[in-house]
Amino acid sequence: MRLESTLTGATHPAPEPRTPTPRPGGRSTRVRAEVVAATLAEVAEKGYDGLTVEAVAARSGVHKATLYRRWGGVDGLVADALTASADQPWPLPDTGDLRQDLRRITQEVFSVFTDPELGPTPTALISAAQRSDTGAAALRAFFAARHRQAAEVAERAVARGELPAGTDGTEVVRAATAPLYYRLFVSGEPLDARTAERAADAAALAARAGLFTPTTTTPEQN
Amino acid sequence: MRLESTLTGATHPAPEPRTPTPRPGGRSTRVRAEVVAATLAEVAEKGYDGLTVEAVAARSGVHKATLYRRWGGVDGLVADALTASADQPWPLPDTGDLRQDLRRITQEVFSVFTDPELGPTPTALISAAQRSDTGAAALRAFFAARHRQAAEVAERAVARGELPAGTDGTEVVRAATAPLYYRLFVSGEPLDARTAERAADAAALAARAGLFTPTTTTPEQN
Repeated sequence: MRLESTLTGATHPAPEPRTPTPRPGGRSTRVRAEVVAATLAEVAEKGYDGLTVEAVAARSGVHKATLYRRWGGVDGLVADALTASADQPWPLPDTGDLRQDLRRITQEVFSVFTDPELGPTPTALISAAQRSDTGAAALRAFFAARHRQAAEVAERAVARGELPAGTDGTEVVRAATAPLYYRLFVSGEPLDARTAERAADAAALAARAGLFTPTTTTPEQN
Repeated sequence: MRLESTLTGATHPAPEPRTPTPRPGGRSTRVRAEVVAATLAEVAEKGYDGLTVEAVAARSGVHKATLYRRWGGVDGLVADALTASADQPWPLPDTGDLRQDLRRITQEVFSVFTDPELGPTPTALISAAQRSDTGAAALRAFFAARHRQAAEVAERAVARGELPAGTDGTEVVRAATAPLYYRLFVSGEPLDARTAERAADAAALAARAGLFTPTTTTPEQN
């Protein structure tokens, strides 16, 4: 969801995970931010098939040998661009109403993937990550982190008494966002604001009805 | 959804679309079925990156020149394997209850992608199709056809008075199946029977609440 802060030039650079003592704002952090930005620009322009360590080196001004040493290659670069996105703090909506919170979240997903300024970057990054095992692992971690973070809107709704105790918040988030990602990356259909809103409303309804509590499966009646 | 009949050896071969006067059971139909089967086997074993016209020719016993002439190349082969799947007739559930019908449909999706006999074939085919414009177009057509066909369960529910008039049946189908495809092709999470059931129940609930009717968007309240 919050891919933007990274994609548009992070204002809160994530700590460099491979440095034992990261210094925020230090050289290592700056290098990583430049490499991530260059990777995103290259992926958006040329796609995974056209992505080379050489081009990322040229665009970022970071030596090719450094890129190979710290990132391993193009798959590591793509994975780290996703990890950098997952590491970004993003403000969770807190309207006091689950449906409105979920609408804000699906509206955010809609915005990221239809923003003319970001253009093809978010879609290209996810598509590129799907192309390697390293990228796929980063993608799983990215979505797991997003589910976990966004689950807070459901947890607050449970605390308010708006949702049944035991509701699986990550499942509420998946339900709200899946119809958007389905169109973007599976059925290849256009996304619109109405879809985003409807997906949020459907997830809120299902959550309120207790569908996302870990009850025993009711046997099929037919 | 109903990828199986093709994937496991079609009992009802689809008509050959490029032959002006297709003869069901004729030579052209048999050639296509063999080529589709060989393409599926190759994609499952080697993935898109390992797919070659030569290997499909060797496996199907159809001459390479014929494959290039009729299918254009690997992307055309992948696209046609999907088209063959989309052309397959598949029995729609008709239990007299929307929720049960949707559960059958999501159970079918779950089965196709977790069936040990089919193994990686359905996933590999969709992943391969995502890799080219030709494949992506076939993928869009595949899902559009599936949405259209499966929408009948919602249309019957409207006729029974179970759903509001004007309900968009394709949207009900997307809502029911999106959480499954999201896990399979986006978040990379494992699929289980409970997810399939829950997605169907949530879609039925939202449909009954009138979320899939073309009403004017209610303005956000916050």
